[in-house]
Amino acid sequence: MRIVIPLFPGFTALDVVGPYEVLRMLPGVEVVFAATAPGPVRDGAGFAALTAGAAFADVESADVLLVPGGPGARRGVADEDLVGWIRRVHASTTWTTSVCTGALLLGAAGLLAGLTATTHWGAAELLESYGAVYTERRVVTEGKIVTAAGVSAGIDMALTLAAAIAGPTAAQAFQLAVEYDPRPPFDAGSYAKAPQEAKDYLAARR
Amino acid sequence: MRIVIPLFPGFTALDVVGPYEVLRMLPGVEVVFAATAPGPVRDGAGFAALTAGAAFADVESADVLLVPGGPGARRGVADEDLVGWIRRVHASTTWTTSVCTGALLLGAAGLLAGLTATTHWGAAELLESYGAVYTERRVVTEGKIVTAAGVSAGIDMALTLAAAIAGPTAAQAFQLAVEYDPRPPFDAGSYAKAPQEAKDYLAARR
Repeated sequence: MRIVIPLFPGFTALDVVGPYEVLRMLPGVEVVFAATAPGPVRDGAGFAALTAGAAFADVESADVLLVPGGPGARRGVADEDLVGWIRRVHASTTWTTSVCTGALLLGAAGLLAGLTATTHWGAAELLESYGAVYTERRVVTEGKIVTAAGVSAGIDMALTLAAAIAGPTAAQAFQLAVEYDPRPPFDAGSYAKAPQEAKDYLAARR
Repeated sequence: MRIVIPLFPGFTALDVVGPYEVLRMLPGVEVVFAATAPGPVRDGAGFAALTAGAAFADVESADVLLVPGGPGARRGVADEDLVGWIRRVHASTTWTTSVCTGALLLGAAGLLAGLTATTHWGAAELLESYGAVYTERRVVTEGKIVTAAGVSAGIDMALTLAAAIAGPTAAQAFQLAVEYDPRPPFDAGSYAKAPQEAKDYLAARR
């Protein structure tokens, strides 16, 4: 069970590490972080760097491909090296997945045309520009393609995927292992529910 | 606003990155990852490495100290270099926080004696050996010390802390930015709620 996660400059760290922390518990798993070249790759916020162990050129297949989002994903749609690599690896996968704006990279690779998919709420229109039908659902499975909504939704996606791969008992064991019994102190996690002041606060920072 | 996160071999990646992805949005923030020496530090699962930008010796203060857990935290309680560093930095902080078994490191540093605190459900007894009173609550604030339960609870802790630092509107904006509207496919995230088969599955892997 080989899980491959591409790292590109400007990825969102939680898009990667949320699902990683669940899926790395799958039996017999190997997780490979791939990038243009092996070594540290900096995230979108600029403070964190995750290490790639392999170059894209050396990774041509995966059981699970997990594509994260982030500002680098929005830029990455124009990077034919990255997009072409995703398209090639996808041909080999059992599951091709994205978190947040990682869905834009799947879209740019031509993998979402005509499919229902999700992404970060702020990228819905852009996702549809690739021929996908955006839905606000948190996790969407279409054949072997599983897309997750923004950032933290990758954890829910990973549990859904773990159940599909290893069964519901395993998925529940992983949920217990990471004590995922969420208790957010506010109910502002979706665009529909967030108060206008929170939206204004975000908009003022852009 | 300087947030300092120690990285030690065998940390749990999501303990770090969950709260990081929220707190790095605080206004005027700088996030410093510190380790024995600068460079990549491998996580407990062995697949992921985060890069430390500073050595412990060069970091003597923080506004927020965030101590992750993981198998390396359980080992780290015997590492006086790490524990002593936590104790010294704590003297300078506005907030000292832990995620998961990071609380054991706060305990070993003598910071939890007589306090109510939380940790991963599997480390409750060990936490009490440091004189803390374990509670199953997901986030516990005692003065300037904030402890979170296992792994994913760091996200809830970070939102609570963000509200204390920057106000509820900012915290709700961060929650919306990471689309934290959790929808786990199962309700197995706490020891009380997880089915026995999931507990047996975990126990069989240990």
